[in-house]
Amino acid sequence: MKSSIDILPDGSITTPKGFKTGAIYAGIKKKSKNNLDLTILYSDTPCVAAGIFTTNKFRAAPVYISEHNLGFPDNRAIVVNSGCANAGTGEAGMADAIEMVKTTAETLNMQPKDVLIASTGVIGHRLPMDKIKESIRLIGLSQRNGHDFARAIMTTDTRSKEIAVRVNIEGFQFYIAGAAKGAGMIHPNMATLLGFITTDASVSKDFLQFALKEAADISFNMITVDGDTSTNDSLFMLANGQAENPTFAGDTEYSLVFQQALNIVCQSLAKSVARDGEGAKRLIEIQVEGAASLEDARLIARAVAGSPLVKTAVHGADPNWGRILAAAGRSGADFDIERVDLYLGESRVLQKGQRTGADEKELSSWLKQVEVIIKLNLNLGEGKSTAWGCDLSAEYVKINADYTT
Amino acid sequence: MKSSIDILPDGSITTPKGFKTGAIYAGIKKKSKNNLDLTILYSDTPCVAAGIFTTNKFRAAPVYISEHNLGFPDNRAIVVNSGCANAGTGEAGMADAIEMVKTTAETLNMQPKDVLIASTGVIGHRLPMDKIKESIRLIGLSQRNGHDFARAIMTTDTRSKEIAVRVNIEGFQFYIAGAAKGAGMIHPNMATLLGFITTDASVSKDFLQFALKEAADISFNMITVDGDTSTNDSLFMLANGQAENPTFAGDTEYSLVFQQALNIVCQSLAKSVARDGEGAKRLIEIQVEGAASLEDARLIARAVAGSPLVKTAVHGADPNWGRILAAAGRSGADFDIERVDLYLGESRVLQKGQRTGADEKELSSWLKQVEVIIKLNLNLGEGKSTAWGCDLSAEYVKINADYTT
Repeated sequence: MKSSIDILPDGSITTPKGFKTGAIYAGIKKKSKNNLDLTILYSDTPCVAAGIFTTNKFRAAPVYISEHNLGFPDNRAIVVNSGCANAGTGEAGMADAIEMVKTTAETLNMQPKDVLIASTGVIGHRLPMDKIKESIRLIGLSQRNGHDFARAIMTTDTRSKEIAVRVNIEGFQFYIAGAAKGAGMIHPNMATLLGFITTDASVSKDFLQFALKEAADISFNMITVDGDTSTNDSLFMLANGQAENPTFAGDTEYSLVFQQALNIVCQSLAKSVARDGEGAKRLIEIQVEGAASLEDARLIARAVAGSPLVKTAVHGADPNWGRILAAAGRSGADFDIERVDLYLGESRVLQKGQRTGADEKELSSWLKQVEVIIKLNLNLGEGKSTAWGCDLSAEYVKINADYTT
Repeated sequence: MKSSIDILPDGSITTPKGFKTGAIYAGIKKKSKNNLDLTILYSDTPCVAAGIFTTNKFRAAPVYISEHNLGFPDNRAIVVNSGCANAGTGEAGMADAIEMVKTTAETLNMQPKDVLIASTGVIGHRLPMDKIKESIRLIGLSQRNGHDFARAIMTTDTRSKEIAVRVNIEGFQFYIAGAAKGAGMIHPNMATLLGFITTDASVSKDFLQFALKEAADISFNMITVDGDTSTNDSLFMLANGQAENPTFAGDTEYSLVFQQALNIVCQSLAKSVARDGEGAKRLIEIQVEGAASLEDARLIARAVAGSPLVKTAVHGADPNWGRILAAAGRSGADFDIERVDLYLGESRVLQKGQRTGADEKELSSWLKQVEVIIKLNLNLGEGKSTAWGCDLSAEYVKINADYTT
């Protein structure tokens, strides 16, 4: 079987056939980055849809509404606002989310059940519903507005995050694209993460949900910790089938290529989110090998990527590898210091737990790179995993010490 | 039964009868805070001893040696250095720790098994054994040196932490005293926490271990997370029996008073450690009530106290209560937003999940206090717990970005 996956230079959420977006400044944010805070993603034919939501027991109203509507066989649009999370707003907030979905459905001439919804921003404030309803009716949808969607969902993000890939498999072709927002410290106590994936491939609903979970587990879930989620975290995927491929249902080699392309899209977005952590200068990639199990590898990779002491050491270009080992040791995974090989980039710092005498000044200047790769081999088994994080800067504190006021 | 517990104004680790200390600058630290980095705590009669150690799977050499020596019926001295953790140093580091214990034992004319040991500082460096052995022999022990012990164990601490209490129970009297060091972010990825408790009470070895664990669970373990520990964390207690009380063995009302006094000592030290977190300006106390269980209350209290977003909000005097609820919601404990009452100090901010309309400007100026008390009532059950943390400042990042180099 011949297949290829190409990343498209100027791709956006509307690169797959049949998707349109539009965005507007509704006045939800006092000052709006990009002058956009409300957006709609729309497919001109019905979509099979999938979703993954926060595991936080304090969940925002839009999460409940989206989860409910995903129970229907198809959906067609997603309405998203930034600036207000509609969380901690009680029954009134639920009514607001429903109203937002209804207004979107009326405007687009569809049923409320066709519309999914996401919100991100400050907790505990009501949505300005008059402004939102008026603005929804004013949004103009077009295939050309793709980049606006990625911009409208930003909160403290400094850059919009989007990607599109084209996939060719033996004579047919489809696209997968996505946009995400993150910022915050991401791990361990993240700001809201929102992700939206579109594809014109034809995919069965069950396999779409399965494939999205698979992709999230090696991407978005490796920049956060399961259970360590915000009130609003949501990842959506819409598949409208306009590529007219034989439907992917997980039982063919074609489905594997689809999964592979989806993984690329999700990992690219997740890395963009990690790289753009509040105040961050460096992307940190933690590669764990030789762990006793896959679960152990994931525990260690996330513990190291999320350690404030590792993050500050990388920020200061301080090759303090003791902090890496201390984080691995407290992760809960099997760990034997006498077996550990540790690499900072290409330099082996520890071999079987013994210092190699790598030059600390060289390591320090290497740590000043924009992407820092730390590799740990536990030499205990076959478990492998990769996690991403960012350095922790004084800037992070400044951003978070003054968010609502 | 009549009893009283009094905190002594100028108490130190040598306030209980029969304890002596001495400290010296051995040159382990390049620049020494207080010009002290090596100290010995000594009892002039044998002690029953107890210890609680890090749950990190990467443990420093001194932890192994102390745990081993605590297996003997009694001990008499503890040797402690700051500036070097003797962690990640392999078999050579084990030999160094043993040598340090042997030198101390020879100097004090006792057996190596009588001596416990603790180290704190940078991971991955060998101890300068020549300097240490020479300095151990030069340390002069005296009851008057009590405060020097608390000073010599400091690393990035800005203040020494010590307390002593006098306990009277129906005609007899004893003392409990302690010293600790902490700093670091404490939770969630702490710098090394060392605690040392002395008493001249007579206590059975089993009950001493039990009582120390009880006290740690409502003090030191509520400023850290079980499993989220450094390589060297250690809490020691020595009881030399010189007060000649009827031995406390956990089966009398007297034992309860002993436990109560020990709790006061440990909570005071733990709060001092939290208050002195690196770069911290404010102590944050999280009081949880009405949780579904004790374990749930502990989970919530620690999740909120350790949340970087809560810590930065307090630092910025930003009454962003949504972050408090989001941290509680992700703690893993039962949580129903519709039942939560939340107080910032005396102000009720939420009643049964609904905003009370408390004035945000007043809340913000209240948050500028040195001690910030946040109270959450889950209204789900009887679980109660308190945790302590500190605000997260830009200063924290500066301290940790440049610790080894």
